[in-house]
Amino acid sequence: MKEEINLDFDRDKRIGQPEIIYGESKSVEQLLEIALQLSEAGRNGLYTRVSEEKAAVVCNQFSDIEYNSVAKCLSQKSAPPFGERGEIALVCGGTSDIPILREAECTADFLGFDTKVYADVGVAGLDRLLKCLPDIRKAKVVIVFAGFEGALASVLAGQISVPIIGVPTSVGYGVAAGGMAALNAMLTSCSNGLLVTNIDNGCGAVMAAARICPLMTK
Amino acid sequence: MKEEINLDFDRDKRIGQPEIIYGESKSVEQLLEIALQLSEAGRNGLYTRVSEEKAAVVCNQFSDIEYNSVAKCLSQKSAPPFGERGEIALVCGGTSDIPILREAECTADFLGFDTKVYADVGVAGLDRLLKCLPDIRKAKVVIVFAGFEGALASVLAGQISVPIIGVPTSVGYGVAAGGMAALNAMLTSCSNGLLVTNIDNGCGAVMAAARICPLMTK
Amino acid sequence: MKEEINLDFDRDKRIGQPEIIYGESKSVEQLLEIALQLSEAGRNGLYTRVSEEKAAVVCNQFSDIEYNSVAKCLSQKSAPPFGERGEIALVCGGTSDIPILREAECTADFLGFDTKVYADVGVAGLDRLLKCLPDIRKAKVVIVFAGFEGALASVLAGQISVPIIGVPTSVGYGVAAGGMAALNAMLTSCSNGLLVTNIDNGCGAVMAAARICPLMTK
Amino acid sequence: MKEEINLDFDRDKRIGQPEIIYGESKSVEQLLEIALQLSEAGRNGLYTRVSEEKAAVVCNQFSDIEYNSVAKCLSQKSAPPFGERGEIALVCGGTSDIPILREAECTADFLGFDTKVYADVGVAGLDRLLKCLPDIRKAKVVIVFAGFEGALASVLAGQISVPIIGVPTSVGYGVAAGGMAALNAMLTSCSNGLLVTNIDNGCGAVMAAARICPLMTK
Amino acid sequence: MKEEINLDFDRDKRIGQPEIIYGESKSVEQLLEIALQLSEAGRNGLYTRVSEEKAAVVCNQFSDIEYNSVAKCLSQKSAPPFGERGEIALVCGGTSDIPILREAECTADFLGFDTKVYADVGVAGLDRLLKCLPDIRKAKVVIVFAGFEGALASVLAGQISVPIIGVPTSVGYGVAAGGMAALNAMLTSCSNGLLVTNIDNGCGAVMAAARICPLMTK
Amino acid sequence: MKEEINLDFDRDKRIGQPEIIYGESKSVEQLLEIALQLSEAGRNGLYTRVSEEKAAVVCNQFSDIEYNSVAKCLSQKSAPPFGERGEIALVCGGTSDIPILREAECTADFLGFDTKVYADVGVAGLDRLLKCLPDIRKAKVVIVFAGFEGALASVLAGQISVPIIGVPTSVGYGVAAGGMAALNAMLTSCSNGLLVTNIDNGCGAVMAAARICPLMTK
Amino acid sequence: MKEEINLDFDRDKRIGQPEIIYGESKSVEQLLEIALQLSEAGRNGLYTRVSEEKAAVVCNQFSDIEYNSVAKCLSQKSAPPFGERGEIALVCGGTSDIPILREAECTADFLGFDTKVYADVGVAGLDRLLKCLPDIRKAKVVIVFAGFEGALASVLAGQISVPIIGVPTSVGYGVAAGGMAALNAMLTSCSNGLLVTNIDNGCGAVMAAARICPLMTK
Amino acid sequence: MKEEINLDFDRDKRIGQPEIIYGESKSVEQLLEIALQLSEAGRNGLYTRVSEEKAAVVCNQFSDIEYNSVAKCLSQKSAPPFGERGEIALVCGGTSDIPILREAECTADFLGFDTKVYADVGVAGLDRLLKCLPDIRKAKVVIVFAGFEGALASVLAGQISVPIIGVPTSVGYGVAAGGMAALNAMLTSCSNGLLVTNIDNGCGAVMAAARICPLMTK
Repeated sequence: MKEEINLDFDRDKRIGQPEIIYGESKSVEQLLEIALQLSEAGRNGLYTRVSEEKAAVVCNQFSDIEYNSVAKCLSQKSAPPFGERGEIALVCGGTSDIPILREAECTADFLGFDTKVYADVGVAGLDRLLKCLPDIRKAKVVIVFAGFEGALASVLAGQISVPIIGVPTSVGYGVAAGGMAALNAMLTSCSNGLLVTNIDNGCGAVMAAARICPLMTK
Repeated sequence: MKEEINLDFDRDKRIGQPEIIYGESKSVEQLLEIALQLSEAGRNGLYTRVSEEKAAVVCNQFSDIEYNSVAKCLSQKSAPPFGERGEIALVCGGTSDIPILREAECTADFLGFDTKVYADVGVAGLDRLLKCLPDIRKAKVVIVFAGFEGALASVLAGQISVPIIGVPTSVGYGVAAGGMAALNAMLTSCSNGLLVTNIDNGCGAVMAAARICPLMTK
Repeated sequence: MKEEINLDFDRDKRIGQPEIIYGESKSVEQLLEIALQLSEAGRNGLYTRVSEEKAAVVCNQFSDIEYNSVAKCLSQKSAPPFGERGEIALVCGGTSDIPILREAECTADFLGFDTKVYADVGVAGLDRLLKCLPDIRKAKVVIVFAGFEGALASVLAGQISVPIIGVPTSVGYGVAAGGMAALNAMLTSCSNGLLVTNIDNGCGAVMAAARICPLMTK
Repeated sequence: MKEEINLDFDRDKRIGQPEIIYGESKSVEQLLEIALQLSEAGRNGLYTRVSEEKAAVVCNQFSDIEYNSVAKCLSQKSAPPFGERGEIALVCGGTSDIPILREAECTADFLGFDTKVYADVGVAGLDRLLKCLPDIRKAKVVIVFAGFEGALASVLAGQISVPIIGVPTSVGYGVAAGGMAALNAMLTSCSNGLLVTNIDNGCGAVMAAARICPLMTK
Repeated sequence: MKEEINLDFDRDKRIGQPEIIYGESKSVEQLLEIALQLSEAGRNGLYTRVSEEKAAVVCNQFSDIEYNSVAKCLSQKSAPPFGERGEIALVCGGTSDIPILREAECTADFLGFDTKVYADVGVAGLDRLLKCLPDIRKAKVVIVFAGFEGALASVLAGQISVPIIGVPTSVGYGVAAGGMAALNAMLTSCSNGLLVTNIDNGCGAVMAAARICPLMTK
Repeated sequence: MKEEINLDFDRDKRIGQPEIIYGESKSVEQLLEIALQLSEAGRNGLYTRVSEEKAAVVCNQFSDIEYNSVAKCLSQKSAPPFGERGEIALVCGGTSDIPILREAECTADFLGFDTKVYADVGVAGLDRLLKCLPDIRKAKVVIVFAGFEGALASVLAGQISVPIIGVPTSVGYGVAAGGMAALNAMLTSCSNGLLVTNIDNGCGAVMAAARICPLMTK
Repeated sequence: MKEEINLDFDRDKRIGQPEIIYGESKSVEQLLEIALQLSEAGRNGLYTRVSEEKAAVVCNQFSDIEYNSVAKCLSQKSAPPFGERGEIALVCGGTSDIPILREAECTADFLGFDTKVYADVGVAGLDRLLKCLPDIRKAKVVIVFAGFEGALASVLAGQISVPIIGVPTSVGYGVAAGGMAALNAMLTSCSNGLLVTNIDNGCGAVMAAARICPLMTK
Repeated sequence: MKEEINLDFDRDKRIGQPEIIYGESKSVEQLLEIALQLSEAGRNGLYTRVSEEKAAVVCNQFSDIEYNSVAKCLSQKSAPPFGERGEIALVCGGTSDIPILREAECTADFLGFDTKVYADVGVAGLDRLLKCLPDIRKAKVVIVFAGFEGALASVLAGQISVPIIGVPTSVGYGVAAGGMAALNAMLTSCSNGLLVTNIDNGCGAVMAAARICPLMTK
């Protein structure tokens, strides 16, 4: 098993990023070995897309690892938390986008962000979004989560000047095609300066936000 | 040549639709033969997607056929015009959608609609759209033309109660993919009751509007 | 949970549409919260794509919510029903399209339509369709449900003059591709004025029909 | 150049098929070399998808080669024609399908078929097709050419008992996608026993018909 | 339930085809109703893609219905069998194609064909195929089943003169893409006169063969 | 013509963005009208994807508009330039990516950035990239341009901590598919925090960089 | 059952390849029959993609068959092992690629290779790869396994001169699309001379390596 | 211009590969600059996919550069040729594949291979291929070029034991899809150990062959 794991312990020093582990296609044995290595090295780690079954085994063996079952994230705190980075806004179109928004929230907590959630403000009823705009504009970075046609990202990008990141979600059916319609809509947005991640990549969007908002020195 | 043409002269009586000829892949000889048959039968006809070269030949031989070079439509008036159907609104996201909007306008004129154009009101700058809303709401049917991510259709559908038809346009590059991003966005709209046509089908959208708005009896 | 739900109570007043909830990717906790908010506000609601398991929990707690297990719809009646809109025809190609047709039927009931069902009249045996034509033509709007190659929509659109909406269904295998073959066939129909929804969007087709057929004043 | 050509002279004896040359991506030098080899061997040959420019060069050098500019076919008659195979029906949905129908017609002539053409009988106006049915049923094999949604093949297959072959054509725009919509529609036809060729493969359909209808012995 | 079923009892008389029922997306209630209607009418029927669970219920209630669990077909014999049509060859590339080959075999039995099976003769080891050629050539129609790259159809079509039908199977992984690689390979075959069905459509291939080989009069 | 143009003059005040005009599908008449309106309003504007032919006409009529023929950009300077935003690094994998890099450079100049170009440093020869790293790390934002497999973005993102934006280019053939391979590679990068734009969207990447780097107050 | 199996016993003599059985879509009865035939012929065999359930049945009946549950491979040793071929390097980007790497390892053992594993050396942290380079260069063939964007193959191919084979893995989500992003990235690599297999085809990559490295004569 | 070019002069020493320049999307100014730098450094270079127009300019200025107009390759000989590597076989299915085969031939000449061409040996007529087998087997590496369904690669791989590389070509129409059908067929080949390159990548296939066949020391 040991031969299969090769953590990039140098990454933190090199580019200031902690270890993020993609849990979906890892076996529980692999997850346990990673947790052990991080624990022994006194490092924090975030594990995304971990099923409840695997999470239960891991949490059982490591007392400093916690599980968020909506976000499907394990958070390992074998070291003090990161410092502060300021506030990011997490905005989603519909209630169904919540699990990916929560993955982003876990990542943001892990990296030292304050978060503010604006849920279910899709463009079918514009007023819900428009009345949140003054608050959303105060964030350092705005992350938009939307499935189906993903129009929320375009509309919002046209109303705010701060950095904005679109995360298409795999919500929808038919030609929504597991998030492809929302992804392509965000990539072709007529609003300028909207950047995009892979479908459902809530974690990656926050990692990008962390590049934009380095740790604040006290 | 004659063997190749088989006009559905019964259609008008059967379902109240005149002859609409798809010109793109027809030869100029075929177009001339169709014009002749319509002329001899004393029928009107609309020819879409006719190149300037082919149009010049046809107009040269038939004095009752006119060409709109932006819309790429030939309009043959071998019979009195249709009656009145009321007003439709033609709304487009950007200046690049104009040719398809004009195809719809030609079709609407041909079928007896009044038209009102609201151009370049894409969602990147919402105010442009919002201030047209009171006028747009007065139409009997609203047709939305948008390329790129096509978000205009979703936003507009959430603000009006009249029938609304989305026409994705082949404007854009990369994953816009010849209109596929806009088409899929419109089909997966989170706004309810938005109906959709094939990409760039300005003519078809108005044909559908004519089903909704039959000729008004005087 | 409350933070995750943001119902658009203004929609009814703005564009005359009640709340329609897409149930597929919502948790049962989210559905219960929505039902509670609608109940407290004295509003009706329609929930589509709700699994039997989730439906059982919801119906158990709300006596004014009913479940249709073929249509997979929950119908919440916390207010008097809508008024009358007239008759729509629901036409499907094969027996396998029934669940989507039933979703449309639930939506139509909810919105005040009378419905008439013409099932299993696919074009492989034209006579079945042709003999229904006189009846189908009496409807205010016709909705066609078809999977596989979806040819029924084209044939029918060529025979009737009333508004017609195609709903491709995800019935079929191989290149039917979850409804893509039927969708593309309907979008490229050689019959004029056929409008289309997303695959399996029985509910959306009726929402569009409601735009065409407003509530009849008595 | 000679090294590049390797004609399968054995094919005729092995499976009764003459040489068919796909001309689209061959250089004019390659076409000339092939014509020379066939000529020297006293063989007939059919060249499909040959541009007018290339055809002019070839016809200039070989007096027994003729060009059909609609079908884009060269027909080389360095030997007596094949015998008789009976009649096939060539049925197309619209005027735009004619070039592919003509390619089939050239191939049929070359292989010894009698042909009968039924053009522009698309399903938007069913009557045009229905009144041809008695004649179409007399053919030994029926080949259907259709672009856009290709519904003609399904409807026709449900009305006749003879072998029927669908040839999707690259006529249409948007999601017609160069014939993909028609191809997928034909492959997923609800009518039984419809067989299909590649898009625009008029020649191949007749080659298949020739397998079904061997040369009639006198 | 009755309203959902509309059997095409006229088909047999019209085009000589019995009822074929696509069972995949039908409920067991629908299957029972169809069986009842066929039984009462004294008709035979073939049901494809019926799961073992559904089949058990049906067979339990109808003594004249039999199930083939590899082919997933129910065969209802409420009338005397069809007459004779002669022999067809069923040739498959690998052992994994067997279930689709068996579906074809059931259909062939149902329609009055004699069948001969040539299994596991893929082109990776040409000798296996070459030594069957003399026998295969004796069939009236040859049906080839192949997944992965589907090359068997091309090779075989180049060696035989009788009608040949390719059935791509959904065997394979990665870019085999549920049979798409095999389908596209067969459609683009360099061998002439190969016709193709939808992926896994063993039944449809035999229905086409029945058009080619009508019932032999005694 | 005027009716077709509806500039969002409020955008600058609302979100600090100047007018960016997508020139590809606009007619020269439309471009002239836009230039006139900007000129009369005393505004700057950037026009992307303008062909040499159209550019010549526009530059001929407006002396304050300049054309960059590699970048295909027109830059209209009817007002003083923007202020300063600091330095961005423009890094490309191959010489073929230069036109898109130059579009970004034009946009950056227009918006007040200093730019530094690192060209032809693809990962096939890592040393070329590694020796630029110390310089690249000094930029405020790094934009990576790559076609083919786009691996440069992943490798670079793993070596720097500043914000990094990937711009897939339409360079390549076969499965490069007009930039799709590079786009998908960047979206699925194993390096964290890489954000992505549409294919060839050099302008949009810099617009996003401008959100991250607001104008520096003096 | 026997009729369904047709092993290519001649392959070994013809091209030096043993029997490799693709187990995914074979029934357990088919697997048992194959094992029996190999056993009776005194041949070795490798079965890939065999589920644990099927494997248990097979191993229970054949004592000379062993199962590797990570690789999902059965290895049948009814004959002495192959000779020696030298060393191949198996290099993977992430821990999630391990199952496919293990399939390759099983195949390599079966064919007489020595293997060396370099796991979890993805390009996000280049140092992990760079320090393995001297060792990797000693192999006769290098096989790279990578999912997501598959950049590891490009980077490695630029650093080594020995034959290198890329195996894209189906690891990833969203546009990773079951390995399509990695496959297309490898096919379009800017590094020269990288060859590619189907997604997840660990076995095939080693079979190709065996063509490059024939058995060493002693 | 200089800033845009960054040749990897170290590659030869690092992995024994000369400079290969992808000419398709490079401007003639860029090509001239590259030729100058190679010339000054006394290096050889191969430029692929160079149009006749660009080639004429380059050849005009550099007397040691030669152009092959079928292969579309420029070959720059500013240094002595490479040594010997032995013989490779270049096998193609049809005459239309010749240009890509010639690109490979140019590359092979450039790298020190002897080449032998086997053209037009597609599987529709197996005998043409079978009689070349004894000769093909003598090559050190075999490269197969095929468009349409690409079956030649599978058949050949099953008959030879030496390394074999498939190059799908963009020959064909309809679902051949620019080479995608052939590519997917080769990737899913039922023959073991077939490796594949991008569509039309004749050059890359030979670069891979050069990894397998290092320069022979005298």
